[in-house]
Amino acid sequence: MGVRERERVGRHRRGFLRYGAALGAAFVGSHADPLYAQRPENSSPTLADSTKKLGAPVGPYGERARFETAVRRQAKTPTNESSWTFTPLEDSRGIITPSALHFERHHGGIPILDPAKHKLMIHGLVERPLVLTVGEIHRLPAVSRIYFIECSGNTLTEWEKPTESGVQGTHGLTSCSEWTGVPLSLLLKEAGVQNGGTWIVAEGADAAVMTRSIPLEKAMDDILLAYGQNGEALRPEQGYPLRLVIPGWEGSAQVKWVRRLKVVDKPYMTREETSKYTDLMPDGTARRFTFVMEAKSVITTPSGDQRLPSVGFYEIRGLAWSGRGAVRRVEVSTDGGRNWSDARLEEPVLRHAHTRFCHPWRWDGRETILQSRCTDESGYVQPTREELVKQRGLHSYYHNNAIQSWKVSASGSVRNVHA
Amino acid sequence: MGVRERERVGRHRRGFLRYGAALGAAFVGSHADPLYAQRPENSSPTLADSTKKLGAPVGPYGERARFETAVRRQAKTPTNESSWTFTPLEDSRGIITPSALHFERHHGGIPILDPAKHKLMIHGLVERPLVLTVGEIHRLPAVSRIYFIECSGNTLTEWEKPTESGVQGTHGLTSCSEWTGVPLSLLLKEAGVQNGGTWIVAEGADAAVMTRSIPLEKAMDDILLAYGQNGEALRPEQGYPLRLVIPGWEGSAQVKWVRRLKVVDKPYMTREETSKYTDLMPDGTARRFTFVMEAKSVITTPSGDQRLPSVGFYEIRGLAWSGRGAVRRVEVSTDGGRNWSDARLEEPVLRHAHTRFCHPWRWDGRETILQSRCTDESGYVQPTREELVKQRGLHSYYHNNAIQSWKVSASGSVRNVHA
Repeated sequence: MGVRERERVGRHRRGFLRYGAALGAAFVGSHADPLYAQRPENSSPTLADSTKKLGAPVGPYGERARFETAVRRQAKTPTNESSWTFTPLEDSRGIITPSALHFERHHGGIPILDPAKHKLMIHGLVERPLVLTVGEIHRLPAVSRIYFIECSGNTLTEWEKPTESGVQGTHGLTSCSEWTGVPLSLLLKEAGVQNGGTWIVAEGADAAVMTRSIPLEKAMDDILLAYGQNGEALRPEQGYPLRLVIPGWEGSAQVKWVRRLKVVDKPYMTREETSKYTDLMPDGTARRFTFVMEAKSVITTPSGDQRLPSVGFYEIRGLAWSGRGAVRRVEVSTDGGRNWSDARLEEPVLRHAHTRFCHPWRWDGRETILQSRCTDESGYVQPTREELVKQRGLHSYYHNNAIQSWKVSASGSVRNVHA
Repeated sequence: MGVRERERVGRHRRGFLRYGAALGAAFVGSHADPLYAQRPENSSPTLADSTKKLGAPVGPYGERARFETAVRRQAKTPTNESSWTFTPLEDSRGIITPSALHFERHHGGIPILDPAKHKLMIHGLVERPLVLTVGEIHRLPAVSRIYFIECSGNTLTEWEKPTESGVQGTHGLTSCSEWTGVPLSLLLKEAGVQNGGTWIVAEGADAAVMTRSIPLEKAMDDILLAYGQNGEALRPEQGYPLRLVIPGWEGSAQVKWVRRLKVVDKPYMTREETSKYTDLMPDGTARRFTFVMEAKSVITTPSGDQRLPSVGFYEIRGLAWSGRGAVRRVEVSTDGGRNWSDARLEEPVLRHAHTRFCHPWRWDGRETILQSRCTDESGYVQPTREELVKQRGLHSYYHNNAIQSWKVSASGSVRNVHA
């Protein structure tokens, strides 16, 4: 294509293309080689030709492309003592988190449990104590549900000042999977809860013997004894072979590697619901058993550590979720909170699941701040940081669901700010 | 617990437990050790104790449990020439197929394509031919959708007599993922389809240069140019870095490793729509361009090669899907088709997606035949094998969506039969 042709096409481009800046695409003339499958030698020279040799064979269990290995969970302290890793939300697509990238949180390493030997005991205030094998649990009526799990410590670094540079660090302790398991209510009915049974205490088989008290009412409502994740068995770091999945509640209560459920008459005030996983309030008292994860959202692209390569079209994308049910609305501001527009919610919008939102945006090259705000089906609106701090003070670690701000500089770089 | 106590509990069990036979569970007395997290030495001796040492550390990209590696895709011919593998549906949970277990089908091996070099050309009858990089495509407005993909050759061994022993072999060429990508209509509008453009020809960058003709109408409706699968990049065997996803249509048209889309005025009658992927009818003519995958369902447990260990409760589980939209109803017969009952459909029930169905069943120990039958939103009812053969004859390879029969013997063994 000659210079004159290029100029003509260039004008076309400016004139016609809605997504011109996203499409830095080369335009080609109408002389592309004839397309015919059986003559790959006729392929356009502008396209790399991978057709000259046979590719790789099929295999029993696939791996991701070698070009994608930079997408990984990150850990502050990759140890087998108390540790955690963050999901790379900036690279997330849709609402399902790949099991290999689901955030991790454990207090004593990941136990290796043989499903042929692992058992679950249900005892305490029940008529018929049970010890169940994993195989027996697999035979019972099961359901599958897409639910997020968020660590209540997600975003804990961001109370006082912007600390983590990217969305993986600020928000990467939430993930979303399709979980399969037996409704816990079914097992509790089999065991027969006695009068006075009002809580259950769940105990994990890990070295921390992770133990949490959970109201019986929730157990009889929608808690799952899960053994499946995204179409296969739970991953080891997610509690293989059995874990609790508690829709909408903080991750630490969803005991992994669960081996005992004791029906009791009160909460047992374990370490993880007294010295940890409580919220110190401005008046010096502590909120306890703050199970529900309130509505929250975050823009995943553009987000901190990213750079906009040029002015023009971008699709702002993010995730929203609420422990109180379904996301009803997500609004996006591209001017630091002065104006808000409704984002498009990606179907399916499911209760207690990540919801993907998208919003078209044309960047004019000027400094600005991007924010998102979630409203859930209960009418709860995600607060600004100021609103949250006013209520909760600055001595909380957990349950920071404030609106996140990403500042876009004139150079296109994006960073974490408090706005 | 003494003999007398056991007898008492045994009576309780028979009296109270709805799922007694599934719960071969040991019953324990009320003397289980006190539950307290900080004293793991008090754990019940009936439970394996994994709490005495720290577990494994966190990691960047997780792997499945070592105990699960028997769950794998199977190939007749694991070669890098034309080959395929089957998804192990008998172990599937929910509706998402793990990307590592998505069935494979290629005609010349899996090409290794560098996303920094791969490009897509859109040309032919368009106003503005385009060559797009993968990065440019990532910037465009995207959607995520949960869709099944089924090879039209799924179940092709089963026309004349029962051949494959298990559901992996009979039905394992269907899988379901959350796909993320750009609506193809957006790119075609950018390119500007000229008058007379009625089809597109899609070409893959594999050694087979897989090429298929697709009606423009469908491309403008709901075809995706996909780059994401289950929350991360496409897997190499699923077309990394770019493929077509065509909701409800046969897998072979959903060209993987796509590098060219040419807008044309007629179908190009390529190899894969003439000598292959057509259906020879009883009168000697051939059906061509049979894109839509008709409604189909299969019971995944119990299914061939499995064995029922005892009489009693089982949950019959299976998958249903339809290329015409959503599954409206699945019926199950546990007596070889004489009586049918509505199965429970697992939410979410999504258009062009696998739908999980479940049905409680109490096996009395006698020989019987299990079947499932899908009805979709168009009113189409999955046919019996007799009905299908009457219409299509026995010279078809593709599009066998007949009702599957699993025979349960008095010994509990399950096998593939024509009923």
